[in-house]
Amino acid sequence: MFLKNKQKNKQKNTDYSVYIVTDRFLCPPAKMTETIQASILGGATVIQLREKNVDSLTFYKMAQEILEWTKKYEIPLIINDRLDIMLASGADGLHVGQSDLPAAVARKLIGPDKILGVSVTTIPEAKAAEADGADYLGVGAIFSTSTKNDAAFVSIQTLKEIKNAVQIPVVAIGGISKGNMARLSGTNIDGVAVVSAVMGSADPEKATEEIKSAFKMIK
Amino acid sequence: MFLKNKQKNKQKNTDYSVYIVTDRFLCPPAKMTETIQASILGGATVIQLREKNVDSLTFYKMAQEILEWTKKYEIPLIINDRLDIMLASGADGLHVGQSDLPAAVARKLIGPDKILGVSVTTIPEAKAAEADGADYLGVGAIFSTSTKNDAAFVSIQTLKEIKNAVQIPVVAIGGISKGNMARLSGTNIDGVAVVSAVMGSADPEKATEEIKSAFKMIK
Repeated sequence: MFLKNKQKNKQKNTDYSVYIVTDRFLCPPAKMTETIQASILGGATVIQLREKNVDSLTFYKMAQEILEWTKKYEIPLIINDRLDIMLASGADGLHVGQSDLPAAVARKLIGPDKILGVSVTTIPEAKAAEADGADYLGVGAIFSTSTKNDAAFVSIQTLKEIKNAVQIPVVAIGGISKGNMARLSGTNIDGVAVVSAVMGSADPEKATEEIKSAFKMIK
Repeated sequence: MFLKNKQKNKQKNTDYSVYIVTDRFLCPPAKMTETIQASILGGATVIQLREKNVDSLTFYKMAQEILEWTKKYEIPLIINDRLDIMLASGADGLHVGQSDLPAAVARKLIGPDKILGVSVTTIPEAKAAEADGADYLGVGAIFSTSTKNDAAFVSIQTLKEIKNAVQIPVVAIGGISKGNMARLSGTNIDGVAVVSAVMGSADPEKATEEIKSAFKMIK
């Protein structure tokens, strides 16, 4: 019970400020571990492994490999969509979108102690996700993004309203860079999730540092 | 404990003789439930739901829908690859290939009472799968098949040798039809898995009956 509470507290205290999402098109699997390591050294606070259209064994092995690094630096590894890969690899959490397993179903299967994130674009979705057991919300796409063609656009006004509507941390995602970060000023969000700004960078450590600095400026 | 043993016995007694695998290209999702119902009426003893490149919510909802039918007729529904969909839907089992989660990992996550099937093409793979907790093996592709381009070919001689090398039931898969069933005579296999012979048929009930009759002839 003590351990359980300790684990829960650890999650409630998760620092979502610099949330890095992988992308195998911007960063091929052979360079993935190296890039993630660099982003951790640059100040990443959460890593999300997002893989589509790879076989389960490949996804599982990649999760295991990245988990060695995230454990070493004591930051959580979140798996996108694939609850089975999360359970099999022992990753710290799961992130689901509105086309993935329902949040309530996911929460039941992963148990109370793993991190559950949910992508939302509206206040009703945000409130439902919170009620269904989400630990944090991903809100976006805020800006235009090349990494997710089907991402719905969310206005900065809606982002603010979602943040005000829930108690759990809110992370903005979608085309966020050091260049446009200032536009998120006043939203009171808990973190920014970036894909291309880091995964597509020749110097992912520096790119992460820059995102971290830019985010600090708006907090 | 009683219930657990009862459940275990039920699985050990699974009739694998007429094992139907879905295919959304041969049979579109809108017709899937109807086709599966017809194949059950025609004598299907196991249904496997195989989906690739659909979102998790769609896969989950389809599993739930089919499960209503398979429960009604008291035959098992096996989910291909996606352990998360199996757990979430409450399906009866999981089938993994050599590029999916390792059988031992899958067994640990699904527990002792769910059915675990493993695709193998060699005797070492067959023995490893049995040792890792497989309840049955899928062996193929035995004949040329249009539904799985990457399926390795397995000779009828190897199929026989695999059947002799393990204690668990063996199901042959890959291009099996009433027309070529006789070539499996003498292999002592426990069932045949078919995709196109039923999923691609205008009369899936009759097609299943024909597969069932043809299989009985070689037993």
